[in-house]
Amino acid sequence: MTGTRPPATTGKATRAMGNLESLALTYRDGQLLVLDQRLLPQRQSWVRCESPEAMCQIIGTLQVRGAPLIGIAAALALADYAGGGAAPADIVAAATRLAASRPTAVNLQLAMDRMVFKAADLGAAALAAKAEALFDEDRELCRRMGELGASLIADGDHLLTHCNTGSLVTTGIGTALGAIKTAWRQGKKIHVYVDETRPLLQGARLTAWELAQSGIPHTLICDAMAASLMAQGKVDKVLLGADRIAVNGDVANKIGTYSLAVLANHHRLPFYVVAPYTTVDFGCRDGADIPIEERSADEVRGFASVNDGSDPSCWAPPDTPAWNPAFDVTPAQLVTALVLDQGIFPRDVLQAGGLKKLAAGLSYYT
Amino acid sequence: MTGTRPPATTGKATRAMGNLESLALTYRDGQLLVLDQRLLPQRQSWVRCESPEAMCQIIGTLQVRGAPLIGIAAALALADYAGGGAAPADIVAAATRLAASRPTAVNLQLAMDRMVFKAADLGAAALAAKAEALFDEDRELCRRMGELGASLIADGDHLLTHCNTGSLVTTGIGTALGAIKTAWRQGKKIHVYVDETRPLLQGARLTAWELAQSGIPHTLICDAMAASLMAQGKVDKVLLGADRIAVNGDVANKIGTYSLAVLANHHRLPFYVVAPYTTVDFGCRDGADIPIEERSADEVRGFASVNDGSDPSCWAPPDTPAWNPAFDVTPAQLVTALVLDQGIFPRDVLQAGGLKKLAAGLSYYT
Repeated sequence: MTGTRPPATTGKATRAMGNLESLALTYRDGQLLVLDQRLLPQRQSWVRCESPEAMCQIIGTLQVRGAPLIGIAAALALADYAGGGAAPADIVAAATRLAASRPTAVNLQLAMDRMVFKAADLGAAALAAKAEALFDEDRELCRRMGELGASLIADGDHLLTHCNTGSLVTTGIGTALGAIKTAWRQGKKIHVYVDETRPLLQGARLTAWELAQSGIPHTLICDAMAASLMAQGKVDKVLLGADRIAVNGDVANKIGTYSLAVLANHHRLPFYVVAPYTTVDFGCRDGADIPIEERSADEVRGFASVNDGSDPSCWAPPDTPAWNPAFDVTPAQLVTALVLDQGIFPRDVLQAGGLKKLAAGLSYYT
Repeated sequence: MTGTRPPATTGKATRAMGNLESLALTYRDGQLLVLDQRLLPQRQSWVRCESPEAMCQIIGTLQVRGAPLIGIAAALALADYAGGGAAPADIVAAATRLAASRPTAVNLQLAMDRMVFKAADLGAAALAAKAEALFDEDRELCRRMGELGASLIADGDHLLTHCNTGSLVTTGIGTALGAIKTAWRQGKKIHVYVDETRPLLQGARLTAWELAQSGIPHTLICDAMAASLMAQGKVDKVLLGADRIAVNGDVANKIGTYSLAVLANHHRLPFYVVAPYTTVDFGCRDGADIPIEERSADEVRGFASVNDGSDPSCWAPPDTPAWNPAFDVTPAQLVTALVLDQGIFPRDVLQAGGLKKLAAGLSYYT
């Protein structure tokens, strides 16, 4: 089922959760709906998700994307499944498949842990309450990251960001983009350079769209132009998100992040990573332990983001071999500070084991 | 006039030059023909150029591209114009317009200097002879660069290159790609990582095509993946071309080159620039003096390389502001060595004024 907006529907006989609304993920009258991000900004089309299996497909094809949101989307799909009367064994099996639908963002696994693997009660009511809590928590985490991140942004700053880290990947205002929006709402006159973020162009398609909607001045660039901007003194700070953060502070994020970290370091520019605590993998020692998803060569040989069959393009010779890691790892020593909802962790604090101490103090980390 | 191959034609009454054949530029039986590089690799379509004005258009729209080749294409257009009976004043005016058709590659201006501005004889026979000499010289420069560049490539090397520097941009085997082809012909088992080179995708479209035709193993990557490759130890050397080299060794080349130079420096990898002496601007003190062409934002907002009206694509919101410098400047201290047809100039030689000394000794530089 697709449509141009979340459809009004009649409720199911058993409704799993109350209504939940965010920019790209909605639960309304018993229907779980996802904004198909492959088609943005050209088309706003909502997809109805009717099973955990469908959500695996939706996550794997990037109809829903972004570390925080895929965890919450998977949680909603599970709660909806439970509300339909699924047995506990089926719920566990579905959670296992959902957890494996993308390998790098740890939020997905954490959400499955909290919903199922480390949960005592797999009843429909318990899962619904927990999914609602995850949905609401993420909005609040965004608010906190926004405040903390904005404190690092000065009036007049020219910022550089990569990929998309806004309301499309969270249930709130976003991570790095949330900090940028918060600074803007505080009245700081800022300007954002947006890396287009090949191959799937989340910057060109999604971040440019979100910034335009927020009225924040921005300029799109190709990824390889960032170095020139920096050399010309046109960038004050780099802010971006994360898909998984190791306990030593190493950061896995969208491919191209590490490149920006090296370039920022060379030009002595602050490099900030903004993420919720749900992106920290407290069981992961360092970046070498983070699994990096490799995706289809088709994405590199052309523009395959819109992979619903319409407008495929391949500009390279069609049999050209290509390498397509979706993420890279930035070592902690290149991160000026990590902005979590829990606080700002500068490089020296990270290197002194700051995240390990955080784990010990997190009462709501299960 | 377009066609899928250089057409056989009957000669003009006055034929300016003898037949000249290269992969992307041909003079045959009095007709000047250009392979339309915007359409590669999907279509091989030849465009007939009938006037200097048409060549300005052909150069400006990148139907012919690459620092060495645009100079020679302009020279052939002028010689053809003279062969048709153009008056000296018209030839000078045409050369002025051709020299201004793209600003960054100095080869174009040097070719116009040699053909017209610093030439005594503007007669048809003199211009024809000079254009033929430029055409033949470029092939020989490629051969020399190829030998010298190949001497820096070891058996088993994994090389990284950017943009397209092969037979499509010269009348011979190319500059950096010429060195790679020479190493391959010498029996060295090499493998080439090809930066796709946004926005116009010369790497994905043209270098992948040339390497496939030569049978050289290669892998296409997005530009922002290069840093990851380097961090994983998968790259041994970076080789690429130049559009203008200042006397202090600073290099203007395709946007993204400077980014690779910083990344190579960080990972302690050799960074080689391969170019003919015609790319050195002996009147340019340093990189700050090199004019950098800025092109249409449309190229960044989508895939606008095929700008003949077919298949335009815009994936960003259509009114998104974008920055589109076609080139960047790499300071000499990030260049491990400059490989000219004249010899290999390591960083310390460049910094000790090696190119200034070269200028003094170049007998055929006018």
